[in-house]
This record gives sequence, structure tokens and C-alpha cells, in this order.
Amino acid sequence: MKIAVLGTGSVGQTISGRLIELGHEVMIGTRNVKEASARTLKDAYGNPGFGDWLKANPGVKPGTFAESVAFGDIIINATQGSNSAQALHSAVPGDLKEKIIIDLANPLDFSQGMPPSLIPALSNTNSLGEELQKTFPQAHIVKTLNTMWCGLMVNPSLIGGGNHINFLCGNNTEAKVRVRQLLNQFGWKNENLLDLGDITNARGTEALLHLWLRVWSVKQTGVFNFTLVS
Amino acid sequence: MKIAVLGTGSVGQTISGRLIELGHEVMIGTRNVKEASARTLKDAYGNPGFGDWLKANPGVKPGTFAESVAFGDIIINATQGSNSAQALHSAVPGDLKEKIIIDLANPLDFSQGMPPSLIPALSNTNSLGEELQKTFPQAHIVKTLNTMWCGLMVNPSLIGGGNHINFLCGNNTEAKVRVRQLLNQFGWKNENLLDLGDITNARGTEALLHLWLRVWSVKQTGVFNFTLVS
Repeated sequence: MKIAVLGTGSVGQTISGRLIELGHEVMIGTRNVKEASARTLKDAYGNPGFGDWLKANPGVKPGTFAESVAFGDIIINATQGSNSAQALHSAVPGDLKEKIIIDLANPLDFSQGMPPSLIPALSNTNSLGEELQKTFPQAHIVKTLNTMWCGLMVNPSLIGGGNHINFLCGNNTEAKVRVRQLLNQFGWKNENLLDLGDITNARGTEALLHLWLRVWSVKQTGVFNFTLVS
Repeated sequence: MKIAVLGTGSVGQTISGRLIELGHEVMIGTRNVKEASARTLKDAYGNPGFGDWLKANPGVKPGTFAESVAFGDIIINATQGSNSAQALHSAVPGDLKEKIIIDLANPLDFSQGMPPSLIPALSNTNSLGEELQKTFPQAHIVKTLNTMWCGLMVNPSLIGGGNHINFLCGNNTEAKVRVRQLLNQFGWKNENLLDLGDITNARGTEALLHLWLRVWSVKQTGVFNFTLVS
């Protein structure tokens, strides 16, 4: 499958690398290819700068956000939540028509100190997922994977035999079926995928970030996930 | 121990009943004892009206909020989050001095439709737990148990052999030690109690309600809880 990954940070890198491993064609989207490809600075967690990562992952093609959206049969939004709408606005609107956008971003607000809160206009009675769906009604937004560290998104078997939970939600049933298939390729078992319903349920999964960030702070690692006991 | 439970709804009833079972002395607090004791209407889930419940639980003494706070060595806040500060304001301020208030309420806002959101002023960059601590600095607020159905709060072994998670947070270390002891009496094992730190972490656990309500809606039962896999 041709898949576009928007965002060149550690989430975008991790997702893209795994997709290549699974045999997909991948274009990774950024605002400015030349500028992003020149980045060599590691991030706070030691992840390589995008330029170095790209050299180590020659199977991944870099492109602008617009080129990536045009390329992908499925779009994966791994941009920062505060920039997601802008990234998608730079696409040719017709290129988003009937396309699935897997939204795994969170609308984190770093302006009020650490840990971040959520962008007020995209929280409590709204969410990034539903805002994207309202802004791009021609696309099918499916919110998933946003409640965990990116290493687990694409490789759930790293912990607990892969038995922990991944929520999904979205308005289009067929889109959710196709997203499940991709999640299965990542290693997610169907019994660990919980469909919450329509895209307004992104309010629930994005709100979990408030708790996730605090558990991460206590555990000093992101290698954990939530699950349900009943 | 003498324990005051503020709030006569199903949460207050469940907590009070369990405390009596454990041999504690319990006063259950309400705004107006006469009015509350006259209630015979069952709630939407078939729980008895407070008057009928009180007859069936003669070990529990009813009292006003002020009388209850004066009575209790420990106060448990099981009022609706929107009313919690008001309930505590009706106490004699000196009666709150150095007392532990276990806050298991959530600041649910039913004014924007179902499922409820959180009261804007008590969410995202604030929380009910920390608002109560700011409002009543003479007391020690410990936030815990607010992330699950009340039946599980007092009897975690109902599911998963009791192995699921209960978060706690608060500014006073000694208060948290005493709250842990009470949680142990309810059946909580220490390895399933995660201390997140100071009371600002209530933002994390109260935000989980957004997700809890949606999982509840899918499962059509509250008999589940979250846990961590790592």
C-alpha cells in the first residue's frame, strides 16, 4: 500500500520505518523537505535528526505535506497536534477526498508549563480528531494509537505479550475496518482493539494524555500502556 | 475510626456500607437531613432512595455536612463535584484543620449534553482536587478512587483478582500513608496503588473520566477498571 506519514519527529520516523519493514511504500511529509533533510540534531531522547534518519532509511521518500497527501492511499497524521490542521490545509483539497487519515496526534499545549495540558479549544468539549473531521469533511478521520509511546504503536508485543489496549474511533465504518487491518499488521490483535464509536470519542482518548504524561513521569519510561480489566 | 462520608448518592451509600462492615463508625453527611431521609425514589440504576437505604443501614448515622466534618477523623468527599466546595464550606473551618479529605468526586458538567464533560474551570489546567486543596489549605486533600465504579472502590477483588490500578495523589505524605491503610482495608494491594505525586496530578485522574464514560457506554456496565501493562 502507498502510505503517507505526515511529521518527521520520532513518531513519524518510527511509523515510517515499520511500514517499510512491512513492505509498504512510504512518503514522509514535512513543511520544507530541504530544511528538514538538513537536520542532524538529536532530540532530547537521543533520536536522530531527520537528515541522519533519512540516510539510514533510504526506502522512505521525503516529500512536502501536499506531495505526501497526493501520494498516499492512507495518510497517517504524526504531526504535532497544534500543527495538524495547517499541515493538511497545505494539501490540494481534492487529494483528501475519501481518503483515510489515521490521526495519532494529540493537541498538547506546552505554553502553560510541564507537563503539557491540552489546547483549550481542542479539549473537554472538542478534540483534535473531531476538529480535523469538521475541517476536512471529505476525508475519513480515524483516531487511534494516540494513547501510547510510538514504539508500542507499531510493535505492541514489546510488553505483556501484546495484550494491552488500543482505542479507535471514527465516523466511517469501512475506514475503521481498513485501519484495523493495518493495526493487525503492526501486531495488534482484534481483541485488544476497542472501537468507541464516532469521532467525538477522540475527546476520551486525547484526555488520557493528562494521565499518561503523569504515569510516564513516575515511571520515567514510556514503555507502558493501559489496558482494561473486567 | 470515625469516618464522615459526604454525599448520600450511590457512591456515598456504597462507601458508608463498606466502612460499617469494616467496623468503623460512620456519619453520612447531607445538606438537609430531614429532606434527604424522606427520599424513597430509586435512582436510574435501581439504587434505593436515601431514606430507604438509611432504614436498611441503621449503623450509619445521618448528619449535616457540618456535623459530619466535626465527627470524622477522616472525611470522604462523595458529593457531586459541582457541589463539593459548597458542602465543605458549610463546615466550621476549624473542624477541617489537619484533617484528611479523601476526594473521590469528579467535576462532571452535564450542561453540555451526554456524556458529561468536565467543568471548564476545574479541568485541563486545574482540577477539583487541587481546587479543594487551594480552598481549604488547612486540610489534607488526597485524591483517589475517582477513576472507577463505586462497587470496585471498596471491593477491588470483584474483578481480575483485585489486580487493577488505583491512583492517588496529594501534597501531604503522612496523609497518603493513612489513606493507603484505609485502601488496604477495602482490599487494595499496595502494588496496585500508584502515587502520582502532589495534588495537581488530580488533573490526570479526573481527565480519565472522559475515557471512562465512553468505555462504560460501549461495555454497558461500570464493572471494569484500567490497569497498566509494562
